[in-house]
Amino acid sequence: MKIDTLITARWVIPIEPAHTIHDNYAVAIHDGRILEVLPQNQINKYQPQSQIDLPQHVVLPGLINAHTHAAMNPLRGSADDLPLMTWLQEHIWPAEQKLVSANYVYDGSLHACAEMIRGGITCFNDMYFFAEQTARAAEQAGMRAVIGLIVIDFPSAYAQNAKEYLHKGLQLHDQLRSNHLITTAFAPHAPYTVSDAPLREIVTLAEELDIPVHMHVHETADEVQQSLQQHGMRPLARLQQLGLISPRLLAVHMTQLDSSEISQLAQAGAHVMHCPESNLKLASGFCPLQTLLNSNVNVCLGTDGAASNNDLDMFGEMRTAALLAKGVAQDARAADAESVLRMATINAARALGLEDRIGSLKPGKAADMIAVNLHSIETLPVFNPISQLVYAAGRHQVTDVWVAGRHIMKERTLTTLDTNEILTKVRDWQTKLVNA
Amino acid sequence: MKIDTLITARWVIPIEPAHTIHDNYAVAIHDGRILEVLPQNQINKYQPQSQIDLPQHVVLPGLINAHTHAAMNPLRGSADDLPLMTWLQEHIWPAEQKLVSANYVYDGSLHACAEMIRGGITCFNDMYFFAEQTARAAEQAGMRAVIGLIVIDFPSAYAQNAKEYLHKGLQLHDQLRSNHLITTAFAPHAPYTVSDAPLREIVTLAEELDIPVHMHVHETADEVQQSLQQHGMRPLARLQQLGLISPRLLAVHMTQLDSSEISQLAQAGAHVMHCPESNLKLASGFCPLQTLLNSNVNVCLGTDGAASNNDLDMFGEMRTAALLAKGVAQDARAADAESVLRMATINAARALGLEDRIGSLKPGKAADMIAVNLHSIETLPVFNPISQLVYAAGRHQVTDVWVAGRHIMKERTLTTLDTNEILTKVRDWQTKLVNA
Repeated sequence: MKIDTLITARWVIPIEPAHTIHDNYAVAIHDGRILEVLPQNQINKYQPQSQIDLPQHVVLPGLINAHTHAAMNPLRGSADDLPLMTWLQEHIWPAEQKLVSANYVYDGSLHACAEMIRGGITCFNDMYFFAEQTARAAEQAGMRAVIGLIVIDFPSAYAQNAKEYLHKGLQLHDQLRSNHLITTAFAPHAPYTVSDAPLREIVTLAEELDIPVHMHVHETADEVQQSLQQHGMRPLARLQQLGLISPRLLAVHMTQLDSSEISQLAQAGAHVMHCPESNLKLASGFCPLQTLLNSNVNVCLGTDGAASNNDLDMFGEMRTAALLAKGVAQDARAADAESVLRMATINAARALGLEDRIGSLKPGKAADMIAVNLHSIETLPVFNPISQLVYAAGRHQVTDVWVAGRHIMKERTLTTLDTNEILTKVRDWQTKLVNA
Repeated sequence: MKIDTLITARWVIPIEPAHTIHDNYAVAIHDGRILEVLPQNQINKYQPQSQIDLPQHVVLPGLINAHTHAAMNPLRGSADDLPLMTWLQEHIWPAEQKLVSANYVYDGSLHACAEMIRGGITCFNDMYFFAEQTARAAEQAGMRAVIGLIVIDFPSAYAQNAKEYLHKGLQLHDQLRSNHLITTAFAPHAPYTVSDAPLREIVTLAEELDIPVHMHVHETADEVQQSLQQHGMRPLARLQQLGLISPRLLAVHMTQLDSSEISQLAQAGAHVMHCPESNLKLASGFCPLQTLLNSNVNVCLGTDGAASNNDLDMFGEMRTAALLAKGVAQDARAADAESVLRMATINAARALGLEDRIGSLKPGKAADMIAVNLHSIETLPVFNPISQLVYAAGRHQVTDVWVAGRHIMKERTLTTLDTNEILTKVRDWQTKLVNA
């Protein structure tokens, strides 16, 4: 049978079925989709147009960055070691005031896409101003993305009020309707920055358009305290009243959770986007990861933006999630390597409403895949390739990346983006910020 | 003036003086030592035998891994996500029973040295059986090392009882006396594995030989509990009675500390070897890093062995230390980037009794240095190179490593070690373990 591509690898980790590591396997790809995952001794039935042999590599689904602000890449390292509110009010917001524009968002997002592809990320869930520019950048990069239709009460260079944000968001949703790689989600910024009326409208619209609602929720104790004073209830209780706690909700951070809230999330089928490095860096609190997993809440993993992490490194994020969960749960069995790899793949696909397309190497799904070379001083011996991916590998060991069968990184070279041009632009934005 | 080597770099971070980042600077090296750190517009006074220009790099002192078990590298990833005692008793100790020998320790240590050099580590403080083999490996690698003279009550392939361990340790100390890169420390394993008599002897001998005492202390709550039952006091109180709490003490882990113990450590001038990733992975507890720093305790940073981390990556360890401290202290200002870089350099030099030789780029000190290329998608823009080193860079961005002026990694190629030979041997040990 004639097919487009056959990839052979030392190990294939399909994610589905669970607990599976195939030795000396192959993946057959045709028309951008996974056709079959099969033993190497059965590959003769296929006549591939191209065959790629990766005898030292593990092949697995592309990683999904479940929460980021791609456009913030040019602010990486501009303000560290500061409390959340000082960081936001004295550094990030003033910098954004100076810089944010359609061009800035496009250039910053392109930089983030380059970083993400180089680190084995094939899909990201984003929230930022001028979201159409982030969509343009993802399209240029050949990545899959869920573009947040941002809504916030406050004016910015992008829109003046919640109504205008919503209007622009709906326009963008329409524009992207036929895009096969890019989908949308409503992205009301946070309970403390969006008032009841636009939130109610979002509930209705999300139902109509059948898309998720992506929101920072319970990031800090202060946020909870402020809501108690202002609304007489915790933010989650307010979201519940407004009808937001549902399988559409992608609740980011969630460091402040009591046990009834965890049950409520589990029963409602809402998803948690866990961002451990951002939560640590901003001292926001510890998300109770293992408790959420024990309660069958679907948890995904995100890097947050480069200004608060300071990298878009899902390998680092998997490691931190696995390590931190053990410390927080006081149990070394918490968040084992396979669980965090699932958070970074199939769990995120499910949360984003893309489970039929991505998240595992299942025949019929899109060929969104990465190859990681484990043959190095840093990752040998290999007793278990999942352990090496989570606890030892660096993202630079990703050699090849495919999205819908398109080979967007070949042996570490990006095929869709011009690295030098991106770096030149990033430094232009740095100069503008410093001189502004 | 004729000199051996001149290195020019985009940035030079000398560590001493503190809070200093030199732009477009150079380092003059002669006879293995730092001669001068100077602006690039003054380099004409030197006629170097070789000049190396690093226009995209930051040059800084080599990182010091303040606690590791180099020989455990072949066990990387052999047992994860397990509680400390299950991990030790059912996996690590049985594996060691099968494998540990002089050859194993030499091969494993060589593997660890290759990993450490590739990650910008120029000096490590070690504890393991057959320590003379780790010394041999470090010498082969051209690294600086502090070799632990291990003492433990229990028999192993290396020695039968505390007396024999001590005897072998003293012999090794004598052998290494004239080595200019390798020094020694007594390494009684832990309070719960070494009884009073050998500990008392170590106090006397350490004073005589003027070397440090390297020991796991207060790693877990269980250890403290067990000591209360067995000795009627916490391990630190017992060590205090035995005379071990002094500027010689390198106390590793220290996750269980009350405020009087912290004052005691500060007053005594004892040092803490903080291993955040190991503590998380084994769910040992949180070392109160910021409280220790506030109390002026000298804190260093270690990776621990590859079996409990699972890498010897001081860039990762700096990042985890900085991030975790903020979470634990509930203060985003805790353990800022510069503080953790000092923990990984000058603080460790001080603890190991090597402050006159290493830890900063001060004229007269040994030229133990590394270069890190920050010109990449992952680490641009550079607002502050220390922020990029701690929060964004990967260890693979280390391009060049010098120890005492010797260029042991050149543009990512090891000049002292044969990588393929090391990898072959690592896999031989893996086969032996799996088939044993």
